[in-house]
Amino acid sequence: MSIEEQILAIGKKARAAAVYMAKANTHAKNAALLETAKLIRANKAALTQANQADMAQAQANGLEAALLDRLALSDKAIETMAEGLEQIAQLPDPIGEMTDFKNRPTGIQVGKMRVPLGVIGIIYESRPNVTVDAAGLCIKSGNATILRGGSEAFRCNQALAAIVAQGLEAAGLPADAVQVIDTTDRAAVGTLITMTEYVDVIVPRGGKGLIERISRDAKVPVIKHLDGICHVFIDESANLSHAANIAENAKTHRYGTCNTMETLLVHAHVAKPALAELAQRYAAKGVELRGCKRTMALLPSVKAATEEDWSTEYLAPILSIKVVDSLDEAIAHINQYGSHHTDCIVTENHSHAMRFIREVDSASVMVNASTRFADGFEYGLGAEIGISTDKIHARGPVGLEGLTSQKYVVFGHGETRN
Amino acid sequence: MSIEEQILAIGKKARAAAVYMAKANTHAKNAALLETAKLIRANKAALTQANQADMAQAQANGLEAALLDRLALSDKAIETMAEGLEQIAQLPDPIGEMTDFKNRPTGIQVGKMRVPLGVIGIIYESRPNVTVDAAGLCIKSGNATILRGGSEAFRCNQALAAIVAQGLEAAGLPADAVQVIDTTDRAAVGTLITMTEYVDVIVPRGGKGLIERISRDAKVPVIKHLDGICHVFIDESANLSHAANIAENAKTHRYGTCNTMETLLVHAHVAKPALAELAQRYAAKGVELRGCKRTMALLPSVKAATEEDWSTEYLAPILSIKVVDSLDEAIAHINQYGSHHTDCIVTENHSHAMRFIREVDSASVMVNASTRFADGFEYGLGAEIGISTDKIHARGPVGLEGLTSQKYVVFGHGETRN
Repeated sequence: MSIEEQILAIGKKARAAAVYMAKANTHAKNAALLETAKLIRANKAALTQANQADMAQAQANGLEAALLDRLALSDKAIETMAEGLEQIAQLPDPIGEMTDFKNRPTGIQVGKMRVPLGVIGIIYESRPNVTVDAAGLCIKSGNATILRGGSEAFRCNQALAAIVAQGLEAAGLPADAVQVIDTTDRAAVGTLITMTEYVDVIVPRGGKGLIERISRDAKVPVIKHLDGICHVFIDESANLSHAANIAENAKTHRYGTCNTMETLLVHAHVAKPALAELAQRYAAKGVELRGCKRTMALLPSVKAATEEDWSTEYLAPILSIKVVDSLDEAIAHINQYGSHHTDCIVTENHSHAMRFIREVDSASVMVNASTRFADGFEYGLGAEIGISTDKIHARGPVGLEGLTSQKYVVFGHGETRN
Repeated sequence: MSIEEQILAIGKKARAAAVYMAKANTHAKNAALLETAKLIRANKAALTQANQADMAQAQANGLEAALLDRLALSDKAIETMAEGLEQIAQLPDPIGEMTDFKNRPTGIQVGKMRVPLGVIGIIYESRPNVTVDAAGLCIKSGNATILRGGSEAFRCNQALAAIVAQGLEAAGLPADAVQVIDTTDRAAVGTLITMTEYVDVIVPRGGKGLIERISRDAKVPVIKHLDGICHVFIDESANLSHAANIAENAKTHRYGTCNTMETLLVHAHVAKPALAELAQRYAAKGVELRGCKRTMALLPSVKAATEEDWSTEYLAPILSIKVVDSLDEAIAHINQYGSHHTDCIVTENHSHAMRFIREVDSASVMVNASTRFADGFEYGLGAEIGISTDKIHARGPVGLEGLTSQKYVVFGHGETRN
């Protein structure tokens, strides 16, 4: 079989399994999750061995340290995977939920039912924990899934695939509901993202390059998350103590995450005290500052920011700073240079707060809170398969509901249309 | 300017207008709709003249009668356009609506706000009324729109574009919020559906060929409606009087609409009486019947249905009929041959009704009601820009809400993440 035929065969099996998953009851889906969690713990030794073989080969191939770090599967990471499945089992089952029923003048009742999307293709880097997370979310949401992890995690992913299949079967669900592609050939991805007959949506998880490539070539709809160029705007009426805490936390809590602030905007009227305080805090944590001319006038040690800085996701201890003259200027800057991910205003002015949340065109808009809160767990979704910067379908953190759609349900009593 | 440059320029203006439309208040949007309605009535003579010039050229070019019929703009059609805008003005404004706020343990409150998609491209056939309908829905939902109508309606669409622009300006809104592409060059569509920087979603309205072509080539997400192969399944426990009324209405109320039934499935236990009654009704209306072998045994005058019949949208007085042995067989047939549009079960058995609505994978699933009810007005959406057979974003009849998305709103009090 060619790679294409192999992937089409996987797609066909996924489509068939999706029919059973869509009608599976909550008890069976939870049983599969809990059984898989048990099996992960029971197979700790085998998983560790598979991971060690993956790690040895990756080291021999010269994989960089940060990626090796993500590939590694410690005892703690194995336990966390199992606990993650148990948490998903405890979430409410979204499938079959009927809402919004209304009586229509014709006598029919019209409402909606939440149903799975069908088959979800997930493409991700060499992080074995994503295999289990993604499988768990798809099982709970009644979808079938085809997983394609990074090639460095091949052995470990195959071992996890076998465990998940066993968990599904123990619960009377089709093992094909979760399939991990068993080839590292890159051509597999090309088929996966174009076989519209068998795949309903693609969720890529990884760097911007991967996601851009997939979005460009996919024929299947993609729930995508490109970059996170997030802003905090300190308004003239801000509580400056809150502003300093939020701007510090949004930048320094973690540098490599997509909801980390990359550009700080400060209203000219409060720029002097706000930046004086923040410059100290950032200096203490070794954050490099790059600023506009007015920032440089206030903080002489700051380097000049280039035009490119305003649209750069540093993912590093670097921050660009711009002094602005108005709320309008701040909103315009964010909508032009931001990535429509997460942006925050620090203000005590109610009208400014309400204008900011309405006019900033981002997936998450915040008033007086750190951008770091933009996260499925923090929002109460229980789990997260990614953060969408798209406007279509899912926007912001994507939990179980983002893996579903709603159909219309009509209850009649023999009505016909006049 | 090349065609591509022209369309990019239109896109740029639309993107700028979208910023103003997104923050426009309900009063201004309604004023634009009502003013446009007034102007349509006041310009009846000029619109009629433009339409007559379009009609004369289309006749000279040998356009077929059915298409000429859609192109024609009677006095009544002009009044209906104006009334349509007045109805849209009366619908609730979905934009800015905030819902689902929850307190999180960290102290932040997380909820959602409904916002416009941004710029919507609409591609449709030579039907001038669609120009006004689509403009009205996009204005009310706070979007900017780029309209591309069929070339036969060129003069009339340009006249309508000028009127809508006047209506927007009278209400203090940007005239560029509704732009009608002013070239009939086909290359314009190619640019429109690929300029992801300026267009957020494409809604094609027209035949299957048009929609397939657009879906294949588009880089912008498409809300698409392919075909409507709708089914009615008469279950063994059906009220046969309801069944006859529904099956007659679903087929014969209108032949050319997407929610018309194309295949009738009948449980073997009730096939004899159900088909005897329906054969009479269909004969009286001149509907041609094509059936499986068991249907032919019961109704000797019925022609044999071929495999192709089961997946054909006739849009004509033709019906295919299949006798099945079980609910499972009916569901499997619908999911295999249908188009995931609208399907109905006629039954008095509650468990069968609930299994049907859960397991049939269609945008609208109905119990004891005619498939002809699958319609934005009948569902209470107030208006409809199309019916989506996609699962992503909008599914089923798409009203104002389908032209919006939801962003997350976080209200804090200075919270930072631990």
